[in-house]
Amino acid sequence: MLKVLLSIFLVLVVVISIMGRTQKATVKKEKRVPQTLSKGWGDQLIWAQTYEEALFWARSKNKPLMVIFHLDDCPHSQALKKAFAEDEKIQKIADENFILLNLVHETTDKHLSPDGIYVPRILFVDPSMTVRADITGRYSNRKYAYEPSDIKICKFKLLA
Amino acid sequence: MLKVLLSIFLVLVVVISIMGRTQKATVKKEKRVPQTLSKGWGDQLIWAQTYEEALFWARSKNKPLMVIFHLDDCPHSQALKKAFAEDEKIQKIADENFILLNLVHETTDKHLSPDGIYVPRILFVDPSMTVRADITGRYSNRKYAYEPSDIKICKFKLLA
Repeated sequence: MLKVLLSIFLVLVVVISIMGRTQKATVKKEKRVPQTLSKGWGDQLIWAQTYEEALFWARSKNKPLMVIFHLDDCPHSQALKKAFAEDEKIQKIADENFILLNLVHETTDKHLSPDGIYVPRILFVDPSMTVRADITGRYSNRKYAYEPSDIKICKFKLLA
Repeated sequence: MLKVLLSIFLVLVVVISIMGRTQKATVKKEKRVPQTLSKGWGDQLIWAQTYEEALFWARSKNKPLMVIFHLDDCPHSQALKKAFAEDEKIQKIADENFILLNLVHETTDKHLSPDGIYVPRILFVDPSMTVRADITGRYSNRKYAYEPSDIKICKFKLLA
């Protein structure tokens, strides 16, 4: 009995070690998916890379800038991203009327965090370079936070 | 004769107008290719999006940062990009040893333009956040410019 158990154990060890090796080889060979600037917020939209670039485009195209702060591993960011990316109307409005920037890191400009640093948070900047701290969502404690159900408010704001 | 010419002209007008319409429809339907963070400098590499993000990664991973300033419509940038992206060894060295950032817009940090603003230009930053103005290419007038043939110098610098 002990002999049988021992051989089963040995076979298991060999199988697991082979599986481990195969997996390692696969991981090493696996090609990385190129990172996109949209990060899932709309592949068909044109995104600025940095705040400086976004300000340049806002000024030169005379369009307001929309800055979305988010994090990959934040469920609230993910939910808002899904709603934003899947809403065709909001994608169209964003594409036609705004310079767009999404960031997973804060900038050095304190004007972009009027009531602190949190995600998701959306700030608008005028083509004249003024951060529009007066454009807020519907939460008094985190003024620039939006939820998926706020997309309609957002649409209204975008068109205002 | 005039009648024949007139009908040929009319047919031509109709054909051109139909072709025009088809072309317009195609342009409108055409999907945009999602912008990548690599912008052609190596899709398999991991790129930081902004200087702030790159500095954060350099500090937390204790790796030096390589900042490439370039422009899409600059032939010198294009040539350097091609050499950089196609050189497997340099891609491997860059991937394993550096935090990487490529920018088509200047940052607000003057330390990144020690001898002025031009492209292509490569600057290195220590994990301690010091811009290494001492790491230069082989041109005395534009110290941080590199040409495709300098890739070997670059390799040496990357390994130093």
